Amino acid sequence: MSTFGTLFRVTTYGESHCASVGAIIDGCPPGLPLAAQDVQVQLSRRRPGQSNLTTPRDEKDLVHLQSGIEHGVTLGTPIGLLVRNEDQRPKDYSETDLYPRPSHADWTYLEKYGVKASSGGGRSSARETIGRVAAGAIAEKYLKLAYGIEIVAFVSSVGKIDMPSAVSPPSQVPDDDDDTVEDALSPEFVELLKTVTREQVDAQPTRCPHAETSERMIKRILRAKEANDSIGGTVTCVIRGAPAGLGEPVFDKLEATLAHAMLSIPATKAFEIGSGFRGTRVPGSRHNDAFVRREGGGGLATRTNWSGGVQGGISNGEDIYFRVGFKSPATITQPQETAQYDGTPGTLAARGRHDPCVVPRAVPIVEAMAALVIMDQVLIQNARRAAVSLLPPITTLPPTMVKPTAPAAKAEGEEKH
Amino acid sequence: MSTFGTLFRVTTYGESHCASVGAIIDGCPPGLPLAAQDVQVQLSRRRPGQSNLTTPRDEKDLVHLQSGIEHGVTLGTPIGLLVRNEDQRPKDYSETDLYPRPSHADWTYLEKYGVKASSGGGRSSARETIGRVAAGAIAEKYLKLAYGIEIVAFVSSVGKIDMPSAVSPPSQVPDDDDDTVEDALSPEFVELLKTVTREQVDAQPTRCPHAETSERMIKRILRAKEANDSIGGTVTCVIRGAPAGLGEPVFDKLEATLAHAMLSIPATKAFEIGSGFRGTRVPGSRHNDAFVRREGGGGLATRTNWSGGVQGGISNGEDIYFRVGFKSPATITQPQETAQYDGTPGTLAARGRHDPCVVPRAVPIVEAMAALVIMDQVLIQNARRAAVSLLPPITTLPPTMVKPTAPAAKAEGEEKH
Amino acid sequence: MSTFGTLFRVTTYGESHCASVGAIIDGCPPGLPLAAQDVQVQLSRRRPGQSNLTTPRDEKDLVHLQSGIEHGVTLGTPIGLLVRNEDQRPKDYSETDLYPRPSHADWTYLEKYGVKASSGGGRSSARETIGRVAAGAIAEKYLKLAYGIEIVAFVSSVGKIDMPSAVSPPSQVPDDDDDTVEDALSPEFVELLKTVTREQVDAQPTRCPHAETSERMIKRILRAKEANDSIGGTVTCVIRGAPAGLGEPVFDKLEATLAHAMLSIPATKAFEIGSGFRGTRVPGSRHNDAFVRREGGGGLATRTNWSGGVQGGISNGEDIYFRVGFKSPATITQPQETAQYDGTPGTLAARGRHDPCVVPRAVPIVEAMAALVIMDQVLIQNARRAAVSLLPPITTLPPTMVKPTAPAAKAEGEEKH
Amino acid sequence: MSTFGTLFRVTTYGESHCASVGAIIDGCPPGLPLAAQDVQVQLSRRRPGQSNLTTPRDEKDLVHLQSGIEHGVTLGTPIGLLVRNEDQRPKDYSETDLYPRPSHADWTYLEKYGVKASSGGGRSSARETIGRVAAGAIAEKYLKLAYGIEIVAFVSSVGKIDMPSAVSPPSQVPDDDDDTVEDALSPEFVELLKTVTREQVDAQPTRCPHAETSERMIKRILRAKEANDSIGGTVTCVIRGAPAGLGEPVFDKLEATLAHAMLSIPATKAFEIGSGFRGTRVPGSRHNDAFVRREGGGGLATRTNWSGGVQGGISNGEDIYFRVGFKSPATITQPQETAQYDGTPGTLAARGRHDPCVVPRAVPIVEAMAALVIMDQVLIQNARRAAVSLLPPITTLPPTMVKPTAPAAKAEGEEKH
Repeated sequence: MSTFGTLFRVTTYGESHCASVGAIIDGCPPGLPLAAQDVQVQLSRRRPGQSNLTTPRDEKDLVHLQSGIEHGVTLGTPIGLLVRNEDQRPKDYSETDLYPRPSHADWTYLEKYGVKASSGGGRSSARETIGRVAAGAIAEKYLKLAYGIEIVAFVSSVGKIDMPSAVSPPSQVPDDDDDTVEDALSPEFVELLKTVTREQVDAQPTRCPHAETSERMIKRILRAKEANDSIGGTVTCVIRGAPAGLGEPVFDKLEATLAHAMLSIPATKAFEIGSGFRGTRVPGSRHNDAFVRREGGGGLATRTNWSGGVQGGISNGEDIYFRVGFKSPATITQPQETAQYDGTPGTLAARGRHDPCVVPRAVPIVEAMAALVIMDQVLIQNARRAAVSLLPPITTLPPTMVKPTAPAAKAEGEEKH
Repeated sequence: MSTFGTLFRVTTYGESHCASVGAIIDGCPPGLPLAAQDVQVQLSRRRPGQSNLTTPRDEKDLVHLQSGIEHGVTLGTPIGLLVRNEDQRPKDYSETDLYPRPSHADWTYLEKYGVKASSGGGRSSARETIGRVAAGAIAEKYLKLAYGIEIVAFVSSVGKIDMPSAVSPPSQVPDDDDDTVEDALSPEFVELLKTVTREQVDAQPTRCPHAETSERMIKRILRAKEANDSIGGTVTCVIRGAPAGLGEPVFDKLEATLAHAMLSIPATKAFEIGSGFRGTRVPGSRHNDAFVRREGGGGLATRTNWSGGVQGGISNGEDIYFRVGFKSPATITQPQETAQYDGTPGTLAARGRHDPCVVPRAVPIVEAMAALVIMDQVLIQNARRAAVSLLPPITTLPPTMVKPTAPAAKAEGEEKH
Repeated sequence: MSTFGTLFRVTTYGESHCASVGAIIDGCPPGLPLAAQDVQVQLSRRRPGQSNLTTPRDEKDLVHLQSGIEHGVTLGTPIGLLVRNEDQRPKDYSETDLYPRPSHADWTYLEKYGVKASSGGGRSSARETIGRVAAGAIAEKYLKLAYGIEIVAFVSSVGKIDMPSAVSPPSQVPDDDDDTVEDALSPEFVELLKTVTREQVDAQPTRCPHAETSERMIKRILRAKEANDSIGGTVTCVIRGAPAGLGEPVFDKLEATLAHAMLSIPATKAFEIGSGFRGTRVPGSRHNDAFVRREGGGGLATRTNWSGGVQGGISNGEDIYFRVGFKSPATITQPQETAQYDGTPGTLAARGRHDPCVVPRAVPIVEAMAALVIMDQVLIQNARRAAVSLLPPITTLPPTMVKPTAPAAKAEGEEKH
Repeated sequence: MSTFGTLFRVTTYGESHCASVGAIIDGCPPGLPLAAQDVQVQLSRRRPGQSNLTTPRDEKDLVHLQSGIEHGVTLGTPIGLLVRNEDQRPKDYSETDLYPRPSHADWTYLEKYGVKASSGGGRSSARETIGRVAAGAIAEKYLKLAYGIEIVAFVSSVGKIDMPSAVSPPSQVPDDDDDTVEDALSPEFVELLKTVTREQVDAQPTRCPHAETSERMIKRILRAKEANDSIGGTVTCVIRGAPAGLGEPVFDKLEATLAHAMLSIPATKAFEIGSGFRGTRVPGSRHNDAFVRREGGGGLATRTNWSGGVQGGISNGEDIYFRVGFKSPATITQPQETAQYDGTPGTLAARGRHDPCVVPRAVPIVEAMAALVIMDQVLIQNARRAAVSLLPPITTLPPTMVKPTAPAAKAEGEEKH
């Protein structure tokens, strides 16, 4: 359905060519300073027309906040918002009337609903993500203010061009049956995750913060554009500063809800957290993240972070990082041998205006979905912690069963009358 | 939380050392023939002690159905079931009392809840998956009977040992900036997906249906076992015969719910559907799945299936296949330099009985979670189709907006009184 | 939260003085003919200023449909809609700044959220119900078209003025300890439920379809108005033509979800279905609804209908009827001895423009919430029936366990590929 | 479905004659001292055979806790529990094979599911409530310990026999069109709500704490029993000590979720909170609850409490009280003229063992459902409050928009790493 989240909940509406797209954000904490600009920043990073790498449609995508805010402060009631579709009249798409676009959603929508929007992607259009990005920006504002959480996504590959540090060089991989192994990720990449900023990311038109790689990616994308073709890529995202304890065993583990969130973004096909698929090749003795005393504070840290900040489905206080794979855009403008809706074989030559590569614009969408997941999990875990804080201390359990640095923390909760 | 699904819903309980583990399955269609044996088959494939590759604990894992069934037929009411924990007394784990096991859930559970189970994995133990496997077996029974759906999972890699057909040989990958590309998967692998059976899978102790690879995997796992180490791997799963139209835009796309389901399985770190991460490297012109007329039936099929049976988040009637990455088990019996709960550095030498590699036993768990996702989506989509079938035919829309092979199918739904 | 429903789901936003109020309706069956006018009709019945019995604010309440519809037909995607708040500037309410209005939501909102809207009812305002009424109108359109379901609500009492037929005359009630009983409702009232129409209801400014009673109610309301006071009342609602089988045991029984829906309407305090509270006084032998063969069709009907169309939480095909109690509006313009937010005692004299009696305007709101409940339950039950229709006939159960008039009904559901 | 609650969630299974009935309670705060006896107390108050007023089946109803607890303390993981059905063999019910019992769930279950349990009530049996009562007892334990909340239900009427104080004498009700009014409830009754205890309630076999009325009720019930008939009644429940701020606008208002909970109990037909239906007859000027400074603490109290502790759907810190109507039990042992499943008219003479009046046994069920609602709302509101506590103080709003007695209360929430 079109709703995501349990306590912090976004519901979206809108197709590519209707009056507007929008969202209702329910469960936002009251008392949060919030202005349209907080939302607009991320919407503008998402919108088309930002460089010659993306689709030339110049949609303004101005957000109109409708409710839930007064004098720049949230009331705790639902925040309604919308962005008008300025280009409601379909024209460029008419050639596709007879043909479902290959690997696009035309045919499956028709199978599912029996009807479909007259043109463009309808509900499967990337315009649907506007509501998510807006909601995510609100969640981010809270997380930053309350926890200092930072969420930064960036392009880590385009086609076969990887950031040099993102993958261990294949030449270092020995014989398959050999136990000699390399780590799943390079030390440089893990280091980058600790410091990368949105400014660094936006400094490159590809949103790959490694300048040299970005140059190669630009060429790759332009080559696809010239060939009326498209190319995929990956986005890596890091969440810094999230508290330990997020994620709800057993079905709503943190990586499970992150994966759900990410694979709900159009054109995504793959998700991995921490060392991911490459980590499956590393023996446990080398892959395990040993514990060390956390510097300058209670609790434990880990020496390495192959787990991606999550163990047993629960955040452990380390950086949470993951990678999302976006397929090459299905809409290409070179002719394709395919079939019409009725099965008649033929050649489809789409026109329209399309992105040869979506990953640069996907960056704020990935950040938004990450923020929605963390926000919801924070609220759920806070409900538990507040409940626990009202109980008397546990005295009957063996010490090894009880958190050693129990929160001297005082009871929050409700005043009693 | 411990509930998964909307209309077909499983809720589980149980830790590794409590009285029993179990589940309530709500929303099972009434009138389904169902016996304990239907469930037991998959539980027995999941349980430890099946070969010398897995943990030697010999738990019988007999299922006890409690409700929701009479005379071997489901009533439509919740099915309660449980499996007793025969080995409730913890003993082997006491050494770990002072140490949270690295990359295990000990520390994060304590952070989250403030208390933890006295021993073993508690709720994070793989025993928790018993409820899922049981629920999945029930869903599978329905899907097989009603739709002829087949779900088969198998081990596609252990450590660095891949099924030869699973990955394009790296030598064929040309220069990174070159457009010359290979497909994401080999033709042999795609062919295998169309035919592989559980019998073929179970014929190998590794559950990798390729005999020669399986032999290499066995050696790899035994080498890990001898080294008191562990090794990860991947499980690939194919769902054959699922109807088109499954998956709920926009947040509950089929791949999103599959990813959620898979990454809720303990030790998973990665998910990809269809061509997955490798597909991001293939240009759209080569990656798109062109349409052809479906043989012997209405509608369309696709010539290739890089999409993994899902387009726009909705199944298209082709095989649905995906791959899940399982990390190397965290519990190893060689000494690890790490820290105690209170931060004191030291050496942990776990004993206990543990799997050096979990992927063979993970196969039925992956199948179960896949069945739960498909079952729920089938019910939700059927609700829509039944609703549509009661409406008069659409006459006011342009033909290109309406499904051409509209279901002559007659209205199901409700008798009217 | 601000979302209602499982498969047919409405989410609303908006306070009394923000830019707009609106809703997203998710899960509407595709292919439903739908125009703004379908929604506007019920919005106009809800809006203020319809007679001198209600508040004189003249808000146009024009609905703007945003998405989910093309060429007058629903697409199956979310329907976004909004109604602008024309009177956004608060002025009349300033006196209340220091005083929480007694029995209003001012104080509890502040307790809950820590902040509150600057004026008026904010989110607790009756304007919030606009989204519900719009959503309900869409549900109604479907239910009418697909099932012929009719939903009619009307005012059954204002203050102590009951429709004469609604309550057994108290004089007929014998001694408390006597078994001699009267029925819970009069035969005339039960008869009225079978035939009453919206036209009959709207013919009276009070929306009480009994003209003579309506006259008395008008006088009562005007007397309250002149006294700067207010008066409560009840709304009775009947749903005709709903199929048997709606309602989900055990927690989502049909009466439970109806009660939930009704008591979510502002100012409601009471709900009863069928014979309700009065039925608790009638012995089972007289209160039971005996079965008879259903005329002109399969299945059974009941001779009486004290159950209100629901048995065991499931609809039985008879008329579903229930009654909702609305308290006297809390906002009155006579002075009230009360306390300020800080506890200082004083006198509050509200001004503003307020309804002396809300029940006439509550009629379309009750109808809307009833439609939302039935619509959602219809979809859920259809999912089950469609699932069952794909199973082979049951042969192993004793005949008394199987529905005798089993739907020869043919399999709906999915085509198989 | 069979799940209730959002953060504190109970899922139940079981029919009257299967192996066991049980529940999974998910979301219980960790660290709560909990023993089987805490649950057993309420189960024993619910079970049949407690006096000659109820059914003579002597079921032990011993609870078996399965998981989620160690050393008498909850772990925060799901609590599985079950109660065996000792009397699984149906025998007394065979006469009903041909007849659906009037006003019972036999026919509607068959309509809904197409199959039904072979005998007894199946899932519609009151045995299903065992899981709820157990879950409620756990919630109550927490609420008592953390907030000092007390929940007490009692029988307020049987048939036409009301507690004398429960209803204003009808003789005091003047002419219908007269404004002269009495209050909705007597002062004595409102006083009773402040002090009534479970001990006082259990001192009477009817669970009506007014001894004289109880005597009359006993006679009434025995007269029904002798006549092979049945009689209904009402249960009133008060929740003392709940904090202000519970209840989620707009659809999950506190009274809405309470009504949902109560009308999900078998045999219920009516719900009213505070002054309820009678309050609709009292003008606003008399019905409004004026504010006064709360004694010995911050915030406001109300002079009267016609609202039943809820305003705008949110608790205000006053006693929450409501009344639930239970119909006369449908199963009676005198002959009834009705029809068989196939429509054939005839006479049904049920045998079996049945309660002539269910309200005494319903008391702990009402308490349990009340506890489940309050528990869930407490957790949800705590999530919000904890979130707010981490935000900086609001400085930009007019003082009248901000809670004056802002919680100096310090931030709970998460430690930051």
